[in-house]
Amino acid sequence: MNRLEIPKTHPRYDNLMQRERLVQFYYKGIVTISGLISHGRGEAFDYLLGEKSQPFSILAEKVSLAKVLGSRSPVISVNGNVTALADDAIIDVAKKYGIKVEANIFHWSQGRIEKIVDHFRDKGLEILGKNQTERIPGLEHDRGRCERNGIYAADTVIVPLEDGDRVEALRRMGKFVIAIDLNPLSRSARAANVTIVDDVKRTFENILKLNPDENKNEINEFDNDKNLKEAMSFIAHRLETLDWKLEL
Amino acid sequence: MNRLEIPKTHPRYDNLMQRERLVQFYYKGIVTISGLISHGRGEAFDYLLGEKSQPFSILAEKVSLAKVLGSRSPVISVNGNVTALADDAIIDVAKKYGIKVEANIFHWSQGRIEKIVDHFRDKGLEILGKNQTERIPGLEHDRGRCERNGIYAADTVIVPLEDGDRVEALRRMGKFVIAIDLNPLSRSARAANVTIVDDVKRTFENILKLNPDENKNEINEFDNDKNLKEAMSFIAHRLETLDWKLEL
Repeated sequence: MNRLEIPKTHPRYDNLMQRERLVQFYYKGIVTISGLISHGRGEAFDYLLGEKSQPFSILAEKVSLAKVLGSRSPVISVNGNVTALADDAIIDVAKKYGIKVEANIFHWSQGRIEKIVDHFRDKGLEILGKNQTERIPGLEHDRGRCERNGIYAADTVIVPLEDGDRVEALRRMGKFVIAIDLNPLSRSARAANVTIVDDVKRTFENILKLNPDENKNEINEFDNDKNLKEAMSFIAHRLETLDWKLEL
Repeated sequence: MNRLEIPKTHPRYDNLMQRERLVQFYYKGIVTISGLISHGRGEAFDYLLGEKSQPFSILAEKVSLAKVLGSRSPVISVNGNVTALADDAIIDVAKKYGIKVEANIFHWSQGRIEKIVDHFRDKGLEILGKNQTERIPGLEHDRGRCERNGIYAADTVIVPLEDGDRVEALRRMGKFVIAIDLNPLSRSARAANVTIVDDVKRTFENILKLNPDENKNEINEFDNDKNLKEAMSFIAHRLETLDWKLEL
């Protein structure tokens, strides 16, 4: 199904448009084959979440914004799928709060890093990634590449749609890690300090609308395991009570 | 990750090999881009099912075999993903019981149909699909194509990993439809007469091992809605009780 065939009134318009973008960015060389399969996994979990931000999503988003604004040097890490799905919303958040963005990819290649950096530059945001001379210890050579003034020096890193290994390696470096992952059971979700169980585009759009002066106190009270368990209970309850009109 | 990097002892070896096959068949022109994304959705649900056949899966498989063996003209419909994931197991079942197989694809092209038919022929099974002169009413022109002596004339059709529209259209033709779908909430799952909530390869491997003389009585007692609800409850319970060592 291509874009022109999807009416805006379609109940799953956003979801279908996201899939369309993934495919476009695959052809641009920004998204990989395994990124397409990962997106399908995300779609399944988003479907189980009702394809909207839930209270446990919003809470983690509030805590994340407060944490980022209290950090010395926060960085948002972006990979191919994140670029395809949430480029505009990330640019808005990065500009509003002056947060650095760095391209970081699982299947590393200089060409793909440059495509991501150039994509953001063409949309008006300079991001890091072309000079990854440092390494995240514990990750295989190329996968660990990062910039000295970017993720390497960051105190807080936001890692959307990221592999569990990278989250664990960043934590071992002493960084505060905020994961964005639709699967509350993933290793990333469990390894992060704060896990936002939400779609990556919705997450940054929500963060943009938050009042930065509120929610500062919520950091201290926040319990990530408890919040993840609420996400799992939500999905479990939904499976038990879902009406038959919904479809994937 | 490529095949050589996956040790057979890896706890998710089967799952990773399936993903590898999907990618190989994408490059062969048998699997489509949207097939890759669909596979990711399937992976998520299989993960929630514990990546193994559950009692509700086996029950539906027993009922399906009994139904197929009691049918005048059963046909197994295969698309690109099904070919990539379960070709050998389908060939074994089709040969053991003399069941026809027909290639049927969502994004129709003569070239892709021929690739699927040729793939099965190269592995030793002649299947239908190259002469689709009939139509399934209610489906868009090319999507409805089917062979006169295949799906068009079938009384029972097994449709693995299939779109809900096709399941509904086949039912309107009066056929008995057996769906294989890892998502118990999908429209296919709900529209079918019997829904096997299981991986497609495991399904055909299980069917091959069943004793065809048993289970004939289970058809009359089988309640598909009840069985689907058991699948949903199973996933819900698993989400509430899953230990933290599992990962996606």
